[in-house]
Amino acid sequence: MPAKTAYDGMIVIDGLIISKFSRAVFKDMRKGGLTAANCTCSVWEDFEGTMRNVAAWNRMFRENADLVMPVRTTKDILKAKKAGKTGIILGFQNISAFEDQIGYVQLFKDVGVGVAQMAYNTQNLCTTGCYESVDRGLSDFGREVVAEMNRVGIMCDLSHVGSKSSDDVIRASKKPVCYSHVCPSALKKHPRNKSDEELRFIVQKGGFVGVTMFPPFLAKGNAATVDDYVATIDYVIKICGEDQVGVGTDFTQDQDEAFFSWLTHDKGYARELVKFAPIQNPKGIRRIGDFPNLMRAMQKARWPARKIEKVMGENWVAILKEVWGA
Amino acid sequence: MPAKTAYDGMIVIDGLIISKFSRAVFKDMRKGGLTAANCTCSVWEDFEGTMRNVAAWNRMFRENADLVMPVRTTKDILKAKKAGKTGIILGFQNISAFEDQIGYVQLFKDVGVGVAQMAYNTQNLCTTGCYESVDRGLSDFGREVVAEMNRVGIMCDLSHVGSKSSDDVIRASKKPVCYSHVCPSALKKHPRNKSDEELRFIVQKGGFVGVTMFPPFLAKGNAATVDDYVATIDYVIKICGEDQVGVGTDFTQDQDEAFFSWLTHDKGYARELVKFAPIQNPKGIRRIGDFPNLMRAMQKARWPARKIEKVMGENWVAILKEVWGA
Repeated sequence: MPAKTAYDGMIVIDGLIISKFSRAVFKDMRKGGLTAANCTCSVWEDFEGTMRNVAAWNRMFRENADLVMPVRTTKDILKAKKAGKTGIILGFQNISAFEDQIGYVQLFKDVGVGVAQMAYNTQNLCTTGCYESVDRGLSDFGREVVAEMNRVGIMCDLSHVGSKSSDDVIRASKKPVCYSHVCPSALKKHPRNKSDEELRFIVQKGGFVGVTMFPPFLAKGNAATVDDYVATIDYVIKICGEDQVGVGTDFTQDQDEAFFSWLTHDKGYARELVKFAPIQNPKGIRRIGDFPNLMRAMQKARWPARKIEKVMGENWVAILKEVWGA
Repeated sequence: MPAKTAYDGMIVIDGLIISKFSRAVFKDMRKGGLTAANCTCSVWEDFEGTMRNVAAWNRMFRENADLVMPVRTTKDILKAKKAGKTGIILGFQNISAFEDQIGYVQLFKDVGVGVAQMAYNTQNLCTTGCYESVDRGLSDFGREVVAEMNRVGIMCDLSHVGSKSSDDVIRASKKPVCYSHVCPSALKKHPRNKSDEELRFIVQKGGFVGVTMFPPFLAKGNAATVDDYVATIDYVIKICGEDQVGVGTDFTQDQDEAFFSWLTHDKGYARELVKFAPIQNPKGIRRIGDFPNLMRAMQKARWPARKIEKVMGENWVAILKEVWGA
């Protein structure tokens, strides 16, 4: 048995995973020592399709109860840590599942959804995604949806949302909101990346930034290493401080081409929005199981222990507690 | 201020109400001193229609929070009692909302459904209702649904279910099941009424009988009084004992003709299954607000105080706790 390391005692949270969820991925989450992760259960699906996805998750929870457990409160995250399991926060990357029904927000909260991105790349009933030709901001109906998400405790995520729409949501929300998985555009120009001003603003308003390592958003692309990822996080921390920043990898582990095609077309099938070359995650953190290397790279970069603990997971727990109320 | 009566301290549970739910009905529930009631939120609706009904209930809970509150555990029933509110148990009178998805059972449990009748009058994917020409018993898929209802803690109700199907469900279920609102056929022959053997069997198997006062099922029909209702309950108690019997009025307060037409046609629109003459509830308990008269009639019938307390509500709480686990 290897000696206990600092990593074993750490709360490790991944703010965004959209892998092909399976027992293999859950095993890799345990190998990587993940305490909890925001796992996508809806992108283009409608109400019923998303409810079916949640039902499929409930089945996965039962069939892999030795590895994972559902998370509804931050207490559940601590329970997962204690039990040596990975806590799963169900999350949306789009609110198509809310359809035109404000009442659906609470139904999804009740079945376990804790985070929802206000748009995925394009226009929906509430806001505009970051690949849409015109950013139309938050609609009046969208304001009602944000208020309802605040009321029931579902965190608004703005990673794939346009600049003006994000600004509107940040101002409209009475609870902290997040970019769960973004990179700074100062290091790489990209429609998905956020300017220093945008990063500063969300944090000033009490919000949160999870930093991604999705190669197309990193300066070095597929050539990046886990050290480059840590340097990217550090850039964000320079702007945002070290208390409101965390990790949001965007692991797409085991997904196939058909899945990426579905993701990168509006509604899953309409016009193509963006084309990514084959993706290779940063060297050192190619797979979820490599997660401990992220801490090692932070240590190598001479981060103080406290800063590492906060950014690896404790900051996420604190902000989720604010939004969820428990 | 009137003096406190025995009634004020009592847990009063109505095992079945299918009224036109509104602030007026909720006020009448408070007037009647109802601690909790199983309120129908689905009859012929599918998954999505029923989820919308639940969303509408959530809105009613918020808009009438001074009068009612949702019940998910028996602790909530005691909380409602303490708060001077009526606890609402969401219930199905048919499991059309489960469609062909076992996973939907847990989704409905998670949004607050605590009781579900296995069929409403006709054949569905699982069992046969009491007006169907042939009772085909519990299907194999139905067995999976019963097991899932047992697992998540939704009580199987058999009031409108055929005799053979009921027998099958009683034997298949690992948790107690109920007739939430029935009358004995010994007192009045009717397809909806249950024989002494049926009443005895469900209770022998650990189940429960809620006695209804829906006039067509009572010997005296619209001419019945609250005393006749108490005599009917007493008949059931003679067969079932006084620990597994309760009240299930079937109040249809404020519903209109269109609603009854929807109820009495298969799927809400197909062939007509039964025709009821205009209904008048028993004298003394015409409306929900008259509920205290039921206790008075029990006292008049010289029921011991303990028997009254149990049948008015405590028995329901005990059986629900067994099924719900809390």
